[in-house]
Amino acid sequence: MTSSESEPPRRPGEFALIAELFAPLAKDAPGAFGLTDDVAVIAQRSGEDLLLKTDAIVEGVHFFRADPPELIAKKALRRALSDLAAKGADPCAYLLALSLPAWPDMAWLEAFSRGLAEDQAEFSIALIGGDTSATPGPLNIVVTAAGRVPVGAMIQRRGAAVGDLVFVSGTIGDSAGGLALLREDCATLFQPDREALVSRYRLPQPRLALGRALRGVAAAALDVSDGLLADLAHIAEVSKVRVEVDAARIPRSDSLRALWGNGEDAIVRAATGGDDYEIAFTARADRREDVLDAARRAGTRVAEIGRVTAGEGALLLDTHGREIALARPGYRHF
Amino acid sequence: MTSSESEPPRRPGEFALIAELFAPLAKDAPGAFGLTDDVAVIAQRSGEDLLLKTDAIVEGVHFFRADPPELIAKKALRRALSDLAAKGADPCAYLLALSLPAWPDMAWLEAFSRGLAEDQAEFSIALIGGDTSATPGPLNIVVTAAGRVPVGAMIQRRGAAVGDLVFVSGTIGDSAGGLALLREDCATLFQPDREALVSRYRLPQPRLALGRALRGVAAAALDVSDGLLADLAHIAEVSKVRVEVDAARIPRSDSLRALWGNGEDAIVRAATGGDDYEIAFTARADRREDVLDAARRAGTRVAEIGRVTAGEGALLLDTHGREIALARPGYRHF
Repeated sequence: MTSSESEPPRRPGEFALIAELFAPLAKDAPGAFGLTDDVAVIAQRSGEDLLLKTDAIVEGVHFFRADPPELIAKKALRRALSDLAAKGADPCAYLLALSLPAWPDMAWLEAFSRGLAEDQAEFSIALIGGDTSATPGPLNIVVTAAGRVPVGAMIQRRGAAVGDLVFVSGTIGDSAGGLALLREDCATLFQPDREALVSRYRLPQPRLALGRALRGVAAAALDVSDGLLADLAHIAEVSKVRVEVDAARIPRSDSLRALWGNGEDAIVRAATGGDDYEIAFTARADRREDVLDAARRAGTRVAEIGRVTAGEGALLLDTHGREIALARPGYRHF
Repeated sequence: MTSSESEPPRRPGEFALIAELFAPLAKDAPGAFGLTDDVAVIAQRSGEDLLLKTDAIVEGVHFFRADPPELIAKKALRRALSDLAAKGADPCAYLLALSLPAWPDMAWLEAFSRGLAEDQAEFSIALIGGDTSATPGPLNIVVTAAGRVPVGAMIQRRGAAVGDLVFVSGTIGDSAGGLALLREDCATLFQPDREALVSRYRLPQPRLALGRALRGVAAAALDVSDGLLADLAHIAEVSKVRVEVDAARIPRSDSLRALWGNGEDAIVRAATGGDDYEIAFTARADRREDVLDAARRAGTRVAEIGRVTAGEGALLLDTHGREIALARPGYRHF
């Protein structure tokens, strides 16, 4: 096949790129046809629901051009996996739609593909289909991930009820701290703390084991991407309840405390920062022990941070039970 | 919920936009949760395979900013449906990942959403999930479409064999003609011809009824998007055969003949133009009558245009059986 006149010299053409870099990521996946067909097949399994999530990351919005390409690849993938995790699903496969500007050269694309390969091994998933397109604009990466749960076992947003306890995994605010560090250098922060926060921003850790363990235990769940309070407000809205969060109980890392301190403003910043990719969830009050047991089995720290009451919205409360006013509850694109 | 400071005045915020324009597109779909959850559920059905296709269109590459927003929406959707059609699948649902620049105002977005709604009714599909993101660059639209076929009934690319006949649906080159008209005005062309060609460029017609009728009849199939010869070369490559196409038998519309004439160069231009969204396929020679019957049942014109031989590649032959050299067989992004 001849080359198009518009082909840049720094990387092979579209089809060669797919064959060299992406087909190997699909070689063991049944239904992927080695990326030589137009569609992917997912075999149906009785007793299971298939969950789908599509998610875009855009250069200059979700990542910087200078970020390591492996990490950009993993971030694109893990954002979608994190959604599947919070729903209790086992991810199995993904599709990738790349809108590629001229700047990524072959070395960049190889590193990007390597990042995907590493995460495929880490999470036992495979690429089953994709699309590559040119774009005059920023690099745009869309991952559509598929996962499986037993029929009806998906943990929905709408399951919260008055009296539920509210929990969150891991620590909150690290990613927002990492992003702040990348934007405005903070020379006084101890280097390991700096690295810990920046890596939380760059590399989400989907809580798949915890999500799986929470099937049948959590009443409502989602992953924290917009910000803890904003995401809990999503649960409150569709469950038609109020979620109250005790600011002092929000788990924060030592690194984040070193960066922002322990003041109320630091907690607000953490609780509204976003990109945490932890699981926020509620459970009936009599399931507290089951929650803690699920956390132990998954090897993931879980903190009880509040309660579900009658009303609406997600509220952040100080140690006196008074509402802390928020300028904005979380990130939104526009 | 408060508004973000960066919210442009011309349209509502991210969540309001989803609730107003996109949630109505998902309201009747089981497993879409009215777009109020993080993932979509597709129920598994025994005896069926689920097919997935992801496809991006980018402003300035696949469409122009000034194109009618309804048509941009339909083009995004129909490109993916066309792939499902060529595989013999019944589309059932789709996910939408929108990377939105600042320029689309509320009127534009309403028209875009209306285009999706019209096509949902036309093709009996529903939106089941999505993602909206800001972008500093061009509008980037990724559709991931799902379809169903009986287990094993997907018509693959790799099924062509020596001795097969080669067919294509509809007419070829109209879309390339329409694009040429949009790029360089041709004042002498009769207005109805002009409109016919431009509408073929702007609005693909996925051949779903034909694809369904070709299950168990076609040996190999794909939709013509890169260009007839380029796409037949894909079949040749994975089937390890040669595809020979008789230039004179390639079906061309009267409108296209009026634009480009009947010379060999006109045929080459049509056969390498792309964006046709017709189905190109092969069938065993003893299935010719079944192919014609499938075409009749689907109400879609099908033309026999060549044969499968030993060798490799897709060749365009003149009336003397001599190969017509092609500068490039079809479109590629880079």
